[in-house]
Amino acid sequence: MEQRAVDEIILNALREDIGAGDITTESCVPPYKTASARFVAKESGVICGLWAAARVFELVGDMPNAIMAFNDATEGAEVEAGTVIAGVSGGARAILKGERVALNLLQRMSGIATATAKAVHAVNGGSCRVTDTRKTTPGLRVLEKYAVRAGGGVSHRFGLYDGVLIKDNHIAASGGIANAVESARRAAPHTLKIEVEASTLDEVRQALGARADVIMLDNMSVEQMREAVALVNGRALIEASGNMGERDLAEVAAAGVDLISVGALTHTVRSLDISLKFDAADV
Amino acid sequence: MEQRAVDEIILNALREDIGAGDITTESCVPPYKTASARFVAKESGVICGLWAAARVFELVGDMPNAIMAFNDATEGAEVEAGTVIAGVSGGARAILKGERVALNLLQRMSGIATATAKAVHAVNGGSCRVTDTRKTTPGLRVLEKYAVRAGGGVSHRFGLYDGVLIKDNHIAASGGIANAVESARRAAPHTLKIEVEASTLDEVRQALGARADVIMLDNMSVEQMREAVALVNGRALIEASGNMGERDLAEVAAAGVDLISVGALTHTVRSLDISLKFDAADV
Amino acid sequence: MEQRAVDEIILNALREDIGAGDITTESCVPPYKTASARFVAKESGVICGLWAAARVFELVGDMPNAIMAFNDATEGAEVEAGTVIAGVSGGARAILKGERVALNLLQRMSGIATATAKAVHAVNGGSCRVTDTRKTTPGLRVLEKYAVRAGGGVSHRFGLYDGVLIKDNHIAASGGIANAVESARRAAPHTLKIEVEASTLDEVRQALGARADVIMLDNMSVEQMREAVALVNGRALIEASGNMGERDLAEVAAAGVDLISVGALTHTVRSLDISLKFDAADV
Amino acid sequence: MEQRAVDEIILNALREDIGAGDITTESCVPPYKTASARFVAKESGVICGLWAAARVFELVGDMPNAIMAFNDATEGAEVEAGTVIAGVSGGARAILKGERVALNLLQRMSGIATATAKAVHAVNGGSCRVTDTRKTTPGLRVLEKYAVRAGGGVSHRFGLYDGVLIKDNHIAASGGIANAVESARRAAPHTLKIEVEASTLDEVRQALGARADVIMLDNMSVEQMREAVALVNGRALIEASGNMGERDLAEVAAAGVDLISVGALTHTVRSLDISLKFDAADV
Amino acid sequence: MEQRAVDEIILNALREDIGAGDITTESCVPPYKTASARFVAKESGVICGLWAAARVFELVGDMPNAIMAFNDATEGAEVEAGTVIAGVSGGARAILKGERVALNLLQRMSGIATATAKAVHAVNGGSCRVTDTRKTTPGLRVLEKYAVRAGGGVSHRFGLYDGVLIKDNHIAASGGIANAVESARRAAPHTLKIEVEASTLDEVRQALGARADVIMLDNMSVEQMREAVALVNGRALIEASGNMGERDLAEVAAAGVDLISVGALTHTVRSLDISLKFDAADV
Amino acid sequence: MEQRAVDEIILNALREDIGAGDITTESCVPPYKTASARFVAKESGVICGLWAAARVFELVGDMPNAIMAFNDATEGAEVEAGTVIAGVSGGARAILKGERVALNLLQRMSGIATATAKAVHAVNGGSCRVTDTRKTTPGLRVLEKYAVRAGGGVSHRFGLYDGVLIKDNHIAASGGIANAVESARRAAPHTLKIEVEASTLDEVRQALGARADVIMLDNMSVEQMREAVALVNGRALIEASGNMGERDLAEVAAAGVDLISVGALTHTVRSLDISLKFDAADV
Repeated sequence: MEQRAVDEIILNALREDIGAGDITTESCVPPYKTASARFVAKESGVICGLWAAARVFELVGDMPNAIMAFNDATEGAEVEAGTVIAGVSGGARAILKGERVALNLLQRMSGIATATAKAVHAVNGGSCRVTDTRKTTPGLRVLEKYAVRAGGGVSHRFGLYDGVLIKDNHIAASGGIANAVESARRAAPHTLKIEVEASTLDEVRQALGARADVIMLDNMSVEQMREAVALVNGRALIEASGNMGERDLAEVAAAGVDLISVGALTHTVRSLDISLKFDAADV
Repeated sequence: MEQRAVDEIILNALREDIGAGDITTESCVPPYKTASARFVAKESGVICGLWAAARVFELVGDMPNAIMAFNDATEGAEVEAGTVIAGVSGGARAILKGERVALNLLQRMSGIATATAKAVHAVNGGSCRVTDTRKTTPGLRVLEKYAVRAGGGVSHRFGLYDGVLIKDNHIAASGGIANAVESARRAAPHTLKIEVEASTLDEVRQALGARADVIMLDNMSVEQMREAVALVNGRALIEASGNMGERDLAEVAAAGVDLISVGALTHTVRSLDISLKFDAADV
Repeated sequence: MEQRAVDEIILNALREDIGAGDITTESCVPPYKTASARFVAKESGVICGLWAAARVFELVGDMPNAIMAFNDATEGAEVEAGTVIAGVSGGARAILKGERVALNLLQRMSGIATATAKAVHAVNGGSCRVTDTRKTTPGLRVLEKYAVRAGGGVSHRFGLYDGVLIKDNHIAASGGIANAVESARRAAPHTLKIEVEASTLDEVRQALGARADVIMLDNMSVEQMREAVALVNGRALIEASGNMGERDLAEVAAAGVDLISVGALTHTVRSLDISLKFDAADV
Repeated sequence: MEQRAVDEIILNALREDIGAGDITTESCVPPYKTASARFVAKESGVICGLWAAARVFELVGDMPNAIMAFNDATEGAEVEAGTVIAGVSGGARAILKGERVALNLLQRMSGIATATAKAVHAVNGGSCRVTDTRKTTPGLRVLEKYAVRAGGGVSHRFGLYDGVLIKDNHIAASGGIANAVESARRAAPHTLKIEVEASTLDEVRQALGARADVIMLDNMSVEQMREAVALVNGRALIEASGNMGERDLAEVAAAGVDLISVGALTHTVRSLDISLKFDAADV
Repeated sequence: MEQRAVDEIILNALREDIGAGDITTESCVPPYKTASARFVAKESGVICGLWAAARVFELVGDMPNAIMAFNDATEGAEVEAGTVIAGVSGGARAILKGERVALNLLQRMSGIATATAKAVHAVNGGSCRVTDTRKTTPGLRVLEKYAVRAGGGVSHRFGLYDGVLIKDNHIAASGGIANAVESARRAAPHTLKIEVEASTLDEVRQALGARADVIMLDNMSVEQMREAVALVNGRALIEASGNMGERDLAEVAAAGVDLISVGALTHTVRSLDISLKFDAADV
Repeated sequence: MEQRAVDEIILNALREDIGAGDITTESCVPPYKTASARFVAKESGVICGLWAAARVFELVGDMPNAIMAFNDATEGAEVEAGTVIAGVSGGARAILKGERVALNLLQRMSGIATATAKAVHAVNGGSCRVTDTRKTTPGLRVLEKYAVRAGGGVSHRFGLYDGVLIKDNHIAASGGIANAVESARRAAPHTLKIEVEASTLDEVRQALGARADVIMLDNMSVEQMREAVALVNGRALIEASGNMGERDLAEVAAAGVDLISVGALTHTVRSLDISLKFDAADV
């Protein structure tokens, strides 16, 4: 993940929140006052985004600056409620101005990592992997896909430009799966695999016939998935998809698919409850 | 809400998703092919963001363009599962390229509006209003606060720059509530009210003594709220706050507060399930 | 005020002035030559914007850099003609390239601060405060409102988004003052006061009846203002407005208003005469 | 002047003023209400910037839009107090949101054009021309130099990149006028003239000896200027400079110089008083 | 290719060339004068970029606008010297201001397309394809890769983010080819193939053993390539690479490789000679 | 040349190449691994752009950073094949991510400098200078004109805004050379010379009659140039232009012209072959 892309997200969030200034803080807190505070997990979960939260305080641009210290090992780790996960100290104004943006990022990313870890745990071992989708929050995809990886998932294509995924409408427009795969293979860079969405076993057969590299089973029953796995027999990767947030992932994995893509990891986010506690002596 | 701010969100999301191009669509779908499709609610809820979704298709910049048609009356309305809420027609490539961004916006905004409507309904009449917080998704605050209004809520301050909210750290740094309110009143534009956070009845008394315009009751029990309301007796607005997403809002409202601010409206978003169905004859 | 917003103004000004390069300096001054120079007030006035001028030399991006040193206490202070207010030393090219932008900012901001100090002095004590308007130079509002504060004034709302000010056209569109105030109170965040413009005593009465928080007396005679003050009797803040740059501010203040807003502070700016003198031995 | 550069200035100004929205207007004025209004000069002066004001209403981005109509012939013309100089009609919200930015631009540009026209008039015919300087408002140079031309002046170099102007510090760094001119002639594009600043007749002689194309007489008395003109005798253009805003321009011109550059045209701006009057029947 | 990405390139080029204005044209050509002109190929070659040139005139932002008309079929076609490939008519100022940027784009893209067509022709049929590299002009990759496709080539990965290409340094850092391929397969999205660079037949063997999807033969002799092809025997795609601009492409293709990547297509560009001729009667 | 303009080019190129991340490097190379490498010229030529290549590694934004060390004296110097021109050391990921962008810039700029040095050498002394044109790569003009200077050439005007060059279409629109020169002299800043394009001796005469400062001889034979030089006789600068990349520059210079402008310096670029060799022990 590129630092500059993340910086743009953070600067945008700071501009959105602070605008022409933090009137309350600038009225009540003298410019050279310092403070220290700790980020505390108020519930158990996987921590993700500490470096992004730390970057908020570097970019908030108030003098004196605030410095956030955290243990690299905590990033991506599961912690218990009550755990102190990081500390920040420096200018009191900087801490107060950056607090909300830092928490909004950290809580959201930790929420996604926590949900992913649960899904990965549900899959319960084996070679089946949990992957994300493009159902991410507009503008935050780079962070949300990172959070999925922090929770133990793997990334699907980032966008429309770095992967080929032939869906029903592409198939209809091309005149069938064979034509669509052929068109994509001719036009796409040779570095990309060709993935085809199939809703029926017959479509799985056609995709195999067209030598698709990956076949996505869309909204199939576990029974159908098992048949598809048998049919494919290792000749292509198999991805299970479609409301997987509400399915029994262990059962889906047991059907033998290689990947399960779960849109709910990012389209339905529950922030992890994390708070910033100021040290009493300071502010 | 300004069109240009929303355009920047949409253009950013399109850039994020499409990057150097939609390889699959450009391979499989001829440039002049047209299509039509309908947005269908797959569960009941309050629809929000139709104009933003429509704007996606204007900005996707593919020729021929796609046009999205929707009924103004549907924006902010509650619909049943199965309702067709809008239609889009035009260039098949444009529809396919814009589909995911349009859905990501529409589903998220409708999810927030739906959650807000539930909270407003829970408050169950009277003059008590439901308001949002700054716990929004970085970069999307303008849309998320709009969605809260679409669901029947009202907006709290947009950021740190357009409202004064004196919290414990400001109070500590100023040497007490009276000093903090005095500092803010002197420094802030005279067009802003002064709001003070209070966790105890004694702090409520101090805020009243300092002639705060608004008092936020932070994490109080309903019993404490009732006492605070009696104490204030109309001399300031009263806002109830603190994990309100998990409280009985009817009971809180019955305590006589003027506003209830609910962070969960935006920090824990469940997208409303809406899909885009292509008309079979077309693509 | 946010450092980044100011940085954008300065970078924009440097781009505007330097473009593809300072041909004269790059021809005549060797890259490693150093120099020192002093900013000297050529007339008496209130100094404002030293940190912004200093930031110009940090951002001009020439090696070796120039460093500007100034005394924090000078910012906002009144100085006599001939006073050395700051010194800059370092790369001669950097000083020459940044000179004009630094002076343009410093002279303009000091001019506004000086004019504001004169207005504040004219008001001559008491609780009446001098405030600014939205009649600022496009793109420089953040600096100009800061300069007003440096001169002893207070800020009015920053823009249309952080204050409610109901004027004649809003009243006409709403069907009267009562309706307009009611509409605004319902739609605006509860953190904002409601200000109403009144040109007659009858309108003052209506605004009071609608429980406006602030009443702006527009272009009233001093006599009318006195009557309005008596009428309001402390139930709302009173702001005097309308060509105040040409009025006797002491007299207006004596009428008992709380604030006087003066558009001329920013719409008619006379730069304070400040020059940059190079030390002879250097360049 | 490029439309896009002006658009950026206007969009920036609109963002600055409107931010997250015009709360008052959105509360009080229904979205489909229309209105009409007229721009009226409240004092006599040269009108400048009508097309920029018109562009504000195109860019304000509110539906229904407002359209500003003006007579091309009015741009740059001198009008009497009371003259209606343009009309705007369309969406009431759009007019109210754009009003302040449009006026801020129009009043400032007209103020500069009016001051320039006075200076040109003072020069009183002959071939001597009035020109501007780089003492412009940061970010607005393109508009302010245009306003000078609208008032009958001519533009000096736009910035440091499109003209060579050798000043005392460049001369000192190069080891004399001859060296400095030689360095510049070697390094600068052959399309640029070489201008040299001279404070004494001896420096004028040296500049002539180095075959400077233009000689700037800096802060000279009229008597010295006359001698310089005689000395140069047509072998270079002569520009008079230095606090020309406070000099008798007719006298300076009569000394025989080719150009007079007046910093005060842009560093000390007095906005022309122009107001926007709504038609009573409408809003 | 996305219109907006191309628009940014064009706007940037226009800003670079026109800056504060086209002084010559604005001095000499009246604003409402119209003109027409024709783009003529002065040598034979493959035309590419007509739509980009046309977009220049849409974006140049001068009134009255110029409109460029071209035959869609000409894009990507080979034309003879003297062929009129497009016509432009409208505002004379707009044509003159946009002329250079339009030609710079059109000539460069046509030069790349022409060079690619020669390489494709040299390969002389069969299934071997010509592909590009990342040796493109900074900022213009999207256009240059498009020009390669217009000349009959195919695109390699767009950047570092949409393809896996394991080179010697990656191999060294991972401790061998097997480890590197394993690491990449675990970390990269499942939609991407794994390509490995090999300089010896032994490395080809290792890559095959690690089940690489694509093997790049780096700077091999044709004899080595033949052996590699035999060794691989269809189990991976084979790309020949390394100074291919100076190799006999027919011979390389005959060795049986699937792709030949040619850096010279974009790192050594010879613009195709195309001129814009004004119709005499007009300007 | 301004650092910030170059930074924007580099950041844009890095964004273009790295996008959401360097998948291969992030998979195969551990984050804290360090490496060192050397830039080696693989053919003789003039080196240009070392500082820009060095800046790439500063901006690539990976921790630990890479530092590029080079000898200032090498910039603009001619080196033999095999010369080590710079070294880079630090984070292996940073080096690998920045490698391609650094090479693309360095090779292209060195190619232009090398071609310019050849042209300057061909002119073979005397006062005749080699200059560039506006036929540069869109977006890279600042770097390409710098490379021409590094190779011993001089810069022509940067764009349309900093020089007056009256061509046939301007002449036609103005009604003759005299009118065009007169219009330009009246409207352009007095700091700019007036250059006129002439294709015949008669046009040279007219330009002289209008007192043009520079006359461009367009596509003339050497014989015609000699006559033009005689005709002008030192009263204006003379620039020879028109396919000069294919002409005998010594002969053209011998005709007595002051400048020769060569479009091929930038419109037909052959990158100098430079490679980055990693030190074996490291990566």
